[in-house]
Amino acid sequence: MARADVRGRLLTAGLETLHKRGFNATGVQDITDAAKVPKGSFYNHFESKDALGVEVVNQYGAKAAERRRPLLEGAEPPLVRLRDYFRQLNQLGPATGFSRGCLLGNFGTELPSQSPAIRAALKTAFDDWAQAIAQVIEEAQQAGDVSRDMPAETLANFLLNAWEGAVMRSKVEKGPAAFDAFLSVTFNKILT
Amino acid sequence: MARADVRGRLLTAGLETLHKRGFNATGVQDITDAAKVPKGSFYNHFESKDALGVEVVNQYGAKAAERRRPLLEGAEPPLVRLRDYFRQLNQLGPATGFSRGCLLGNFGTELPSQSPAIRAALKTAFDDWAQAIAQVIEEAQQAGDVSRDMPAETLANFLLNAWEGAVMRSKVEKGPAAFDAFLSVTFNKILT
Repeated sequence: MARADVRGRLLTAGLETLHKRGFNATGVQDITDAAKVPKGSFYNHFESKDALGVEVVNQYGAKAAERRRPLLEGAEPPLVRLRDYFRQLNQLGPATGFSRGCLLGNFGTELPSQSPAIRAALKTAFDDWAQAIAQVIEEAQQAGDVSRDMPAETLANFLLNAWEGAVMRSKVEKGPAAFDAFLSVTFNKILT
Repeated sequence: MARADVRGRLLTAGLETLHKRGFNATGVQDITDAAKVPKGSFYNHFESKDALGVEVVNQYGAKAAERRRPLLEGAEPPLVRLRDYFRQLNQLGPATGFSRGCLLGNFGTELPSQSPAIRAALKTAFDDWAQAIAQVIEEAQQAGDVSRDMPAETLANFLLNAWEGAVMRSKVEKGPAAFDAFLSVTFNKILT
């Protein structure tokens, strides 16, 4: 197998297993087993499990940015795009039995004290995400659909964090109530 | 050492180490080392690390309920009590360098797929917590301080989840911005 193929398989299998089981519940061998490559090959491609973790966060962040394109570029009014965006995100919960959650929130809860490198990658991913949401809220403010009494950036960070909290609760409840409350409060009380 | 003493030390050390490092990053030996008891004694008192985890959640939940007494019984108006309550909770972040977060949120992110017993204990702890917040919001609604256009229970669950998300983000940022945004949006936009 070509060297780049092994690396790619480790990254794909790493994202999958680390998302499913969590970082500390997953060993390097779990990842090499899932990638169907020899255990010894891992350290030819990644200095450590932390180093793989950083790349997993960056790759997940890039996928999340791709998912945000309709949010930023769609033709609908900004609040409609934002609601559609969160509705789509919320559907990821039931699709996996509310078992996986958001990899960024999972790592953000589990790893900041343990891995400065993963924490830095998470910070960038969350900041980019919040900035995209803030851009849409600012559009809505300019259109007069959302009050300007609070900065779009504050609202965006609040909503991103609130959504991450809803993801956690949906895992505890194995149900969508937290997502329903999120949509209801966000679009009936906050963004008005 | 008396049998009950060993058990108590394991519980105390378990809560401390599991909160600090996370569930899967902590081994039974880390807990017996921290408790200064022989490793072999663990399984005389707990059937598994999961069984200790359930008791840790219950004990943490009981402490959290104790912390909520001024919220429920204080003489100040309900919204003042609620703001004071969240302000006090937020101070736990800087007190530990934003490193530990909330044990319920940590376990709620890490463990629901892994441990049905811990998930059940977390569900009870979160439900009790949301119910207490809902009670205070309902008081505020009755006093005319909060609109009745949304059930107190929905608002309470939303806020609890949003606060847990803010805790996660504060760990990623090692800073209080998420708590500040939480207080600002909660008391200027939602509970009005």
